[in-house]
Amino acid sequence: MSSLILALDFGGTKLSAAVTADSQTWLAHERHFSQPGATAVDDFRQMLTLAHKLLNGRSPQAVGVSFGGPVDFERGLVRLSHHVPGWENTPLRDWLTAEFNAPVWVDNDANVAALGEWRYGAGQGVDDLLYVTVSTGVGGGWVLNGRIWRGHEGMAGEIGHTVVAPDGPLCLCGKRGCVERMASGPYMAQDLAAAWGEEKRPFTKPVTGKRVAAEAAGGDPTAQRILLRGANALGLGLGNATNLINPARIILGGGVTKAGDLWWEELRRTVRATILPEVSVSLHPAQLGDDAPLWGAVALITAV
Amino acid sequence: MSSLILALDFGGTKLSAAVTADSQTWLAHERHFSQPGATAVDDFRQMLTLAHKLLNGRSPQAVGVSFGGPVDFERGLVRLSHHVPGWENTPLRDWLTAEFNAPVWVDNDANVAALGEWRYGAGQGVDDLLYVTVSTGVGGGWVLNGRIWRGHEGMAGEIGHTVVAPDGPLCLCGKRGCVERMASGPYMAQDLAAAWGEEKRPFTKPVTGKRVAAEAAGGDPTAQRILLRGANALGLGLGNATNLINPARIILGGGVTKAGDLWWEELRRTVRATILPEVSVSLHPAQLGDDAPLWGAVALITAV
Repeated sequence: MSSLILALDFGGTKLSAAVTADSQTWLAHERHFSQPGATAVDDFRQMLTLAHKLLNGRSPQAVGVSFGGPVDFERGLVRLSHHVPGWENTPLRDWLTAEFNAPVWVDNDANVAALGEWRYGAGQGVDDLLYVTVSTGVGGGWVLNGRIWRGHEGMAGEIGHTVVAPDGPLCLCGKRGCVERMASGPYMAQDLAAAWGEEKRPFTKPVTGKRVAAEAAGGDPTAQRILLRGANALGLGLGNATNLINPARIILGGGVTKAGDLWWEELRRTVRATILPEVSVSLHPAQLGDDAPLWGAVALITAV
Repeated sequence: MSSLILALDFGGTKLSAAVTADSQTWLAHERHFSQPGATAVDDFRQMLTLAHKLLNGRSPQAVGVSFGGPVDFERGLVRLSHHVPGWENTPLRDWLTAEFNAPVWVDNDANVAALGEWRYGAGQGVDDLLYVTVSTGVGGGWVLNGRIWRGHEGMAGEIGHTVVAPDGPLCLCGKRGCVERMASGPYMAQDLAAAWGEEKRPFTKPVTGKRVAAEAAGGDPTAQRILLRGANALGLGLGNATNLINPARIILGGGVTKAGDLWWEELRRTVRATILPEVSVSLHPAQLGDDAPLWGAVALITAV
């Protein structure tokens, strides 16, 4: 019997697959960009081609899958993708079971990455943690008692849409002052572009979250204010989550966490100021980077 | 062998005990006020006298205890009481084990009440819930997968000190805009008294949370504003908690939940507006009233 595990990661713009025999190192690993304009069926077919290439004629013992969007874990259904059309209510688990004739587990990327960091990364050694990715959006996943906590509808972990400033700026979700509205890369970039526009300051290339961090590090006071506001909003959200659940550790991944000391210091300061004196939590950068969902997909299988 | 369960509730100002043989009805049940100026040792002695009276010479098979303050559940230690001096780091479990020669479980009142409502009250039929008491303070307890969720230091459930208005009024905890600062009875009363003082309006008796609700129901616009602000702050806190953990149900107990339709409508409206469209949760008033900690203490034993 094969002892190979196949790990798949359907990201918003990338498709990744990897194969491991010992759950420690990859035997094969590839990441491709999804085709522009691809639909769910296109991405599924491209992923199968990639997986079969890596398997090279061998059969996997089990398949773990990370999907970039809400998933009904119990039923193995993808609910939708915010990036790729056609994923609505697709039985991804059953499709893959039929293809590989092996047991398959599918969960959303934040949950899977949380489990990956807990098992193989910055979350090793504790029983419970909150994993948060601060990137295009702000998403989260919980590991409680060594298992993913999904909630009664599989929607747990939505720290990005907790409200920390009810009079704050309007979020795409319709509320004001969501953590994501202030802390995500694109929103910070949008706010900096708007502020620079008002100040009639010329800028020639698109303003990204990375650019906000670079300008802040370079001393631009407007960029610093926006970056600090983002770190403060995220810190309030993490502090609130810590008061509510009292996890041992918070793991932070995603591009915005590369924003430098200014951002991390404000984040840590705000978390400390928000949690009660009897409560403690440690903040750590994620360790697995882009591979967190793939390692988490492996952990998803071995955790069952 | 005895099949009697002894349930004890050390409240801030009241001591309650009850005995059950079938975990359905009380064979005996009494509630006493703690002596004014009582210390931990005084309360402990008064509780023993009460328990032995109810047991009437019989021995309990097990003892479940609700304590009004932070508890180290694993070690059976009371950390402290905010109301009664002398409880710091007392081994309440060991004291009671020695007294009754039976296994003893001790946990804090919010956790125990959450378990009680889940097993015997408004939380029956779901796997996970958040119980919140809105009274002198705002406290909470989680039942996740049919078990109390305590967190790594036993501090989970502190919804009262989650921040929902960082520019809001100053809380005793040192932060601004905590849920408790806006939604608890005494703080609402304090704010109403202050507002009435500014308006030079005479008031003769102490303003309590109950009075705020009565004045609001009677049409006083200042009382209505303060009551609605409290419901709104609590609704933001509950909505945030729901986005984070996705519980099936929220159970609300405590005196402020008697404030009437105005309060409940604003609370429900705010929770709905705060949770994501894919998320649902139902809000229910607690069913067990003052007996929630005693029934929870029974559930604490039978849950092990």
